[in-house]
Amino acid sequence: MSTRLLWINPAGIDSFNQPIEEYIESDKNSRIEVDVVSMPRGPHHLEYQYYCALAVPDILHRIKQAEKQGYDGAIIGGFYDLALREAREITTDFVVTAPAESCMHIATTLGDSFSIIVGRKRWIAVMEENVVKYGFRSRLASFKAIGIGVLDFQVDREKTLRKLLTAARQALEKDLADTIILGCTIEFGFFRELQKELRVPVIDPVLAPLKYAEFLIELKDRFRWTHSKALRYQTPSAKEIRDWDLANQYSFEKNLWESE
Amino acid sequence: MSTRLLWINPAGIDSFNQPIEEYIESDKNSRIEVDVVSMPRGPHHLEYQYYCALAVPDILHRIKQAEKQGYDGAIIGGFYDLALREAREITTDFVVTAPAESCMHIATTLGDSFSIIVGRKRWIAVMEENVVKYGFRSRLASFKAIGIGVLDFQVDREKTLRKLLTAARQALEKDLADTIILGCTIEFGFFRELQKELRVPVIDPVLAPLKYAEFLIELKDRFRWTHSKALRYQTPSAKEIRDWDLANQYSFEKNLWESE
Amino acid sequence: MSTRLLWINPAGIDSFNQPIEEYIESDKNSRIEVDVVSMPRGPHHLEYQYYCALAVPDILHRIKQAEKQGYDGAIIGGFYDLALREAREITTDFVVTAPAESCMHIATTLGDSFSIIVGRKRWIAVMEENVVKYGFRSRLASFKAIGIGVLDFQVDREKTLRKLLTAARQALEKDLADTIILGCTIEFGFFRELQKELRVPVIDPVLAPLKYAEFLIELKDRFRWTHSKALRYQTPSAKEIRDWDLANQYSFEKNLWESE
Amino acid sequence: MSTRLLWINPAGIDSFNQPIEEYIESDKNSRIEVDVVSMPRGPHHLEYQYYCALAVPDILHRIKQAEKQGYDGAIIGGFYDLALREAREITTDFVVTAPAESCMHIATTLGDSFSIIVGRKRWIAVMEENVVKYGFRSRLASFKAIGIGVLDFQVDREKTLRKLLTAARQALEKDLADTIILGCTIEFGFFRELQKELRVPVIDPVLAPLKYAEFLIELKDRFRWTHSKALRYQTPSAKEIRDWDLANQYSFEKNLWESE
Amino acid sequence: MSTRLLWINPAGIDSFNQPIEEYIESDKNSRIEVDVVSMPRGPHHLEYQYYCALAVPDILHRIKQAEKQGYDGAIIGGFYDLALREAREITTDFVVTAPAESCMHIATTLGDSFSIIVGRKRWIAVMEENVVKYGFRSRLASFKAIGIGVLDFQVDREKTLRKLLTAARQALEKDLADTIILGCTIEFGFFRELQKELRVPVIDPVLAPLKYAEFLIELKDRFRWTHSKALRYQTPSAKEIRDWDLANQYSFEKNLWESE
Amino acid sequence: MSTRLLWINPAGIDSFNQPIEEYIESDKNSRIEVDVVSMPRGPHHLEYQYYCALAVPDILHRIKQAEKQGYDGAIIGGFYDLALREAREITTDFVVTAPAESCMHIATTLGDSFSIIVGRKRWIAVMEENVVKYGFRSRLASFKAIGIGVLDFQVDREKTLRKLLTAARQALEKDLADTIILGCTIEFGFFRELQKELRVPVIDPVLAPLKYAEFLIELKDRFRWTHSKALRYQTPSAKEIRDWDLANQYSFEKNLWESE
Repeated sequence: MSTRLLWINPAGIDSFNQPIEEYIESDKNSRIEVDVVSMPRGPHHLEYQYYCALAVPDILHRIKQAEKQGYDGAIIGGFYDLALREAREITTDFVVTAPAESCMHIATTLGDSFSIIVGRKRWIAVMEENVVKYGFRSRLASFKAIGIGVLDFQVDREKTLRKLLTAARQALEKDLADTIILGCTIEFGFFRELQKELRVPVIDPVLAPLKYAEFLIELKDRFRWTHSKALRYQTPSAKEIRDWDLANQYSFEKNLWESE
Repeated sequence: MSTRLLWINPAGIDSFNQPIEEYIESDKNSRIEVDVVSMPRGPHHLEYQYYCALAVPDILHRIKQAEKQGYDGAIIGGFYDLALREAREITTDFVVTAPAESCMHIATTLGDSFSIIVGRKRWIAVMEENVVKYGFRSRLASFKAIGIGVLDFQVDREKTLRKLLTAARQALEKDLADTIILGCTIEFGFFRELQKELRVPVIDPVLAPLKYAEFLIELKDRFRWTHSKALRYQTPSAKEIRDWDLANQYSFEKNLWESE
Repeated sequence: MSTRLLWINPAGIDSFNQPIEEYIESDKNSRIEVDVVSMPRGPHHLEYQYYCALAVPDILHRIKQAEKQGYDGAIIGGFYDLALREAREITTDFVVTAPAESCMHIATTLGDSFSIIVGRKRWIAVMEENVVKYGFRSRLASFKAIGIGVLDFQVDREKTLRKLLTAARQALEKDLADTIILGCTIEFGFFRELQKELRVPVIDPVLAPLKYAEFLIELKDRFRWTHSKALRYQTPSAKEIRDWDLANQYSFEKNLWESE
Repeated sequence: MSTRLLWINPAGIDSFNQPIEEYIESDKNSRIEVDVVSMPRGPHHLEYQYYCALAVPDILHRIKQAEKQGYDGAIIGGFYDLALREAREITTDFVVTAPAESCMHIATTLGDSFSIIVGRKRWIAVMEENVVKYGFRSRLASFKAIGIGVLDFQVDREKTLRKLLTAARQALEKDLADTIILGCTIEFGFFRELQKELRVPVIDPVLAPLKYAEFLIELKDRFRWTHSKALRYQTPSAKEIRDWDLANQYSFEKNLWESE
Repeated sequence: MSTRLLWINPAGIDSFNQPIEEYIESDKNSRIEVDVVSMPRGPHHLEYQYYCALAVPDILHRIKQAEKQGYDGAIIGGFYDLALREAREITTDFVVTAPAESCMHIATTLGDSFSIIVGRKRWIAVMEENVVKYGFRSRLASFKAIGIGVLDFQVDREKTLRKLLTAARQALEKDLADTIILGCTIEFGFFRELQKELRVPVIDPVLAPLKYAEFLIELKDRFRWTHSKALRYQTPSAKEIRDWDLANQYSFEKNLWESE
Repeated sequence: MSTRLLWINPAGIDSFNQPIEEYIESDKNSRIEVDVVSMPRGPHHLEYQYYCALAVPDILHRIKQAEKQGYDGAIIGGFYDLALREAREITTDFVVTAPAESCMHIATTLGDSFSIIVGRKRWIAVMEENVVKYGFRSRLASFKAIGIGVLDFQVDREKTLRKLLTAARQALEKDLADTIILGCTIEFGFFRELQKELRVPVIDPVLAPLKYAEFLIELKDRFRWTHSKALRYQTPSAKEIRDWDLANQYSFEKNLWESE
């Protein structure tokens, strides 16, 4: 039986689904099928915490559904890694990855200290909290913001590339980073050119969580190493969810939590 | 014109509304009106991250509505401080407080190091992340779990009190805490007895955010010191929200974001 | 009975007493009386640790006297927060606040990261130790020094304002602060203009500890939440002080420690 | 062309070569060949820093040779991760992994905080330095020592298993770990029984670096993400090595550094 | 010309002067003269911050006097290291040491992690702040309190020794310290017996700052390495002190600050 | 009997032996004899971790030999402090020092925060790990690289001096260092001119570990304070070393480990 992954674009627009599906296609493990979906409703970008909060419940239900449908795991786009920890709570023997976590694990293995190039200064505070959570604060050289919003990264690729290059060079020379992370999912497709120019690893926020998911699936399938259910990721009780009638209240499918 | 605060019980049950309203009544500033509401839908307790995720959007819309209705601020119950930061993002000149943040600011002023007494071990990981975020990790003596769920704290008050007392004593003697924080909103109503017995400050998770809100309102009204809108708490654009038709999609009132 | 606070200018000059009394007047809680005093002897500014050391015993005795006189609390001026912790040790059911602690509690509630604008580079080392002690190191964006001594802040207000503005702008733009703290008591009276210009909260080092004292008095009066006497702030024994004849030796009033 | 990995037992005994080769056999990726070698000379265990120091040059030359022979990467056994960083310095487009680094990246993805179960207390100081280096100090719940030396882990498997189980249980209950790492390569072969009993992920120090190597090879082959050569891992110049006649001096093959 | 050091017992009793003078005698460098003095007034022990605050100005003036008298340096007793930093501020080309700083520099050179054995739990909070200031927090295994006050350490030597031994053993076995610091000056005279029994370095709080002072004098005399006057330790201006008439106000000798 | 120290130049060239011997001569304690040796084989500089790894075993055997020959201690040149911890493991009642550790202990005593001026950016990552290990991360103002390799520091002294001066000035003015450390052994001989110009302590990487060794010898001889053998520095067993025939395998003298 083949292995199936669900890539979730967490925003309520489908315009990046096909580009990401194609982008992934040639680089995914050939034994793995990846379906790309976006949310049927919701903000078009998630640059605000409010937008993230709106999006999270739908993402979680989509993931719960994917688990029921027999997917082996899901990748949640968006460099805030939103819903990542909640998703691990509600699933069992199911892999969930997200860009920031994956990129940082890879970057700290390949280099000594990394810089993250983001769109706007305003994103940094929340993202830095994730750096701290994951444990990599001492490995972070700097954040660099290039003044571009999520929806504009792919509009003028020349301009984006030029700005990424400038920011990365500063990070390498002034901040003594030796590895670059592209800190927005929609910064996909630039890493090869940057890498060639900069001659350091430039970690792509789409390919990193894809490969990290494949890696975690390998660990799960062979060794049953999956998210620990001992403390933080313990799953809520299906009975409570049924008793409280949450399916009706939040309009999700009744059977989503049934066989739990 | 009087000052009005909204206390939000973030769960989908109203059984704590009246007890908390009465509890607050005698201790609130007499010039301030406090209304207590709970959520019209949702989990009955928020001991899981999934439950929190479900509750947050409704809390945020309730807060946005309160801002429109002329409230001066809101207090969000629940020691995870859920929706606190998002609420600051979507409001302007409006005070928002929550138990953990308020209790820790007070405890670190009154003592050298504090212990937080929670219900279950499983809560600690997420709560400790907040301790780190707020900056108080070096002031934390310990977490203590007494093995009681949110909905049971008020069921057998004798038993709860006894367990709180035992845990607090250990914290003071072994972990060298000199201040105790009760780490669950539903641990309200015990602090006076504990304090008398232990002879150290025991910070109550209902009264602390109430008083902290009154304090912040004073700062706002006199000095216009309110949440900084420079970076993290910048408010999303009402135009985007309208253009994307979020009100329809998420069934909130159309005018919630209108005059922004 | 009314509530009384004592504002202590810790230097041996009285030239700031009236300005600070007037400055406070309109912004203090109307139910609270605030008396402003300075020290009868001592250095005219406290920019050196030696000067601080000279001033501390007199400040402590003045506070002990205030406690006897029925004051509810004291505010000690000076951004080094000198004598703050000692004052909590020698008093019981008495509020003590100081600028740095108060400003940082407020700033970390209102924003994500703060910068402190001080007079001279030389102050930073000692002040940063307080940032670490209070727990806020991870929330500090930067210190900025504008090259002005304590006694000169109010001499050429135009110049001071201009320099504060320049430093604050750099902090916001380069260091990603979203909140500004004015790091010297004598920087009072500038925050409103700065705030209007910068559009972020600018925390005033006189009003912050005043309001924080009012807040702590509220907590003390309602809940008996006062400085923990369990460990660090345990009060020395009046008997020892009498036996060793400290009153005579240090020329303080005999009855200062009597009814303890 | 097939992918080849070299497993290096860093001690000067070959008694673990066959057991590890067999242990790996069924769990390695089928497209990858893994050869297991030990050192032709050297201490029989590496429980002292002196022994490590003796072993490192030979390990590095073996790795350099492996790179020349067309291997894609090497795994260095031993939970001190000795020679790991030096090996990355001397190789290019070549993967190097080691147990501690691999186990911690996996454990911090699967759980909230991990405990490492080692043989002797004396190992902990050096190993904790690696925890800090890698960035995972805030995720470490505890070290536990079970009082068994490297060469004895496999002698009485019943006893070892019993002691591992006891230590792990304490870690989960008292230290609030939710994931266990077996902190010695020769603790291989116990994780399945432990995991079944404990119901949390128990990370095996042989399989973790094997899988991590496979993962890094995938990243290298597809995206050319390899150790950054910008700063720390820059390779020394072959010319210097030739000019100084190091091959003769240290008895390694002359051509080891030739085509560099 | 001989080298002269002043040992300052910071309390207002002279009962420890002779014992410490004798204790030092045989272990000081033979080319160095050490005079031991105590304060002419003040508390008999310094277990409270208030007592410390009273003592500091006299200590500083005594040190300033010593500098004038041609001493090469001073050692300030008391494990709080009180007045240490202020003393460096007011002196130039003059060595000042204190027990905690000296003991920790030595302990972190000789071992991996140290425990400090103090008299009372209440001391720990302030002492730990010094550990943090000096930079050694990550090297601290634990504090242990044995429940004895400063003035009682030498009363029943058998009992003190027994308690020190018990505490040290726990530190070595449970907290994984490998070095012990005796955390009170009046714990002098026990280290040899403890060391013999425990077989780890036990750092004595009288001999450590003595030897550290000799070491710093050597650095000063040969290389002119003395306290940096660039920032924190810059000396206040003699002119200001004269202008403000501080000598009269605080009853110190007029010429103390004259030739500065 | 006189005290003897061995200065070990860790590289395989003898060109710095005489200059360092002469440099030390006038500043060493007159009762101490210092012999300067370099390694009979090995890289000419140790700017790479691979070179360090090659050099370490020979250094350790040279130190073990020195211990047998009755030396009281050894100083290992090179600012990476290589072999320092291993050397403490294999020796007993024998002092070992190295430049980085010694310089930092001195610098943090003399000032508030230090900058380290190194040759190349590439060195910083490894050196910063030592700063963290020793505990001084919070005291580090900055690293500065002046773009000069080890072998070139003494070639054009004018140029080196000029570059050191520029870097140090930036450190003092921008990074708020108040003490400078010269971060390469071959930066010896510049500190006096720098110090005169900069008027802050400039710590010399040859004289610092020399004096620190003299200091540790004093502690060892008087108080038997030597490296703790409790945990990390426990010495391996001579029997194992004999049984495994390590002397033959690594061509060191058989009797090196004999009387242990």
